[in-house]
Amino acid sequence: MTRRILLTLSYDGTDYAGWQWQKNANTVQAEMEKALSAAEKKPMSIVGASRTDAGVHARGQCAHFDTQSRIPAEKYPFVFNTLLPGDIRVLSAREVPLDTHARFSARGKTYHYNIVTGMHPNAVALRYRAHVPQALDAAAMRRAAACLVGTHDFAAFEAAGGTAKTTVRTIRTADVIEVEDGLRLTVYGNAFLYNMVRIVAGTLIYVGQGRLPEDAFARAIQTGDRLCLGPTAPAKGLVLDKIDYSEDDR
Amino acid sequence: MTRRILLTLSYDGTDYAGWQWQKNANTVQAEMEKALSAAEKKPMSIVGASRTDAGVHARGQCAHFDTQSRIPAEKYPFVFNTLLPGDIRVLSAREVPLDTHARFSARGKTYHYNIVTGMHPNAVALRYRAHVPQALDAAAMRRAAACLVGTHDFAAFEAAGGTAKTTVRTIRTADVIEVEDGLRLTVYGNAFLYNMVRIVAGTLIYVGQGRLPEDAFARAIQTGDRLCLGPTAPAKGLVLDKIDYSEDDR
Repeated sequence: MTRRILLTLSYDGTDYAGWQWQKNANTVQAEMEKALSAAEKKPMSIVGASRTDAGVHARGQCAHFDTQSRIPAEKYPFVFNTLLPGDIRVLSAREVPLDTHARFSARGKTYHYNIVTGMHPNAVALRYRAHVPQALDAAAMRRAAACLVGTHDFAAFEAAGGTAKTTVRTIRTADVIEVEDGLRLTVYGNAFLYNMVRIVAGTLIYVGQGRLPEDAFARAIQTGDRLCLGPTAPAKGLVLDKIDYSEDDR
Repeated sequence: MTRRILLTLSYDGTDYAGWQWQKNANTVQAEMEKALSAAEKKPMSIVGASRTDAGVHARGQCAHFDTQSRIPAEKYPFVFNTLLPGDIRVLSAREVPLDTHARFSARGKTYHYNIVTGMHPNAVALRYRAHVPQALDAAAMRRAAACLVGTHDFAAFEAAGGTAKTTVRTIRTADVIEVEDGLRLTVYGNAFLYNMVRIVAGTLIYVGQGRLPEDAFARAIQTGDRLCLGPTAPAKGLVLDKIDYSEDDR
């Protein structure tokens, strides 16, 4: 009998070339498939919800695989964590219907982007935060971020190499809060284009520095012009926080 | 003219064999002295406030050095941070009187010990937290920690290899708070014996698990018996948060 198992997992992405399998590069998917294949004693493949880039972290990535084994779903975190390197940890596992798909059944994703400000940033946790030496105008950033909320054509927000069929996305939350020695951006939406959250973060940093106007996002949505936006912010500040599925799927 | 410069610095201790210089091992002091010697074009030595162990982190270590250079004190963070690896960052620098000593003039030190609980810990920030799979009784830990406060003979709290002339120390604060998916211990005192904070943390974990009574510290202080206490907790959960100097010294 084939069962489908949905995992929630976390990783420190610093030492990985992203989620997705690549020839000649160490990726999270490759480590996950290696561990599962060792446990099940045959080649296994795993489908991730989000193809996080090189250096991006995850507190709550999701992934599914199909198995004929009799291992109870709740044992899989132990199975994986015994075999995985310490910077990848499986947090939970549950059986889901065979038509639930880690990626296509996802209803929403939450990302955080962490920024440390000040000329000389603390070394502790620096691997999870992008460094901006200048003070940033958090209120201006918060106002700018609010323009993202809603269903819009985000064509301007896609990096070269994106392959999405449509560039319309729905953003439900986009907020900037002040934290100890820095800022945290939280965005929640149904899905994101390639590099979209890092382009949003880079634009907000430019708004916070006064280099771009507070209506930068509104202009980019209206015109589809990538040049209305700031640069793509560094990968290390980005953390995939959570994937949501509808109640039926869990 | 000789000037004395007092630095505040931070480091991710994961990849270092502690603060203090060692033959054939990578230490924070060695990296600091290498950077300063390169900047001043002669061999320089640096004295740290706290000789943190291998794997221990620092948000606010302090250190001093004497220089004949004309570099303004406030330029030193730039000088160091250009030359240091990214996991060591100098945060600030100021000139102090020549009789101010990073270690001997310190009036107080604050340490945090971070614990993540739950069977499968999140991989993000796992390098800064010790993992305890069981739930811990934070209230019992808080009551136990309160017994540390005061001036006591902490002879039982010193690991083999300690060289302190007296084992009397004054602890001003010892508290346990609940944080997201774990606990944080904060201790503030005038000074600590070798491995003392990690022995305190290991004992509190045992109290939180019900393996040791809430008066474990009181008994150890009274009897001087190391066996009243728990094991030395892992280095990676320990963060040197801050060194205090009297107003006159700063």
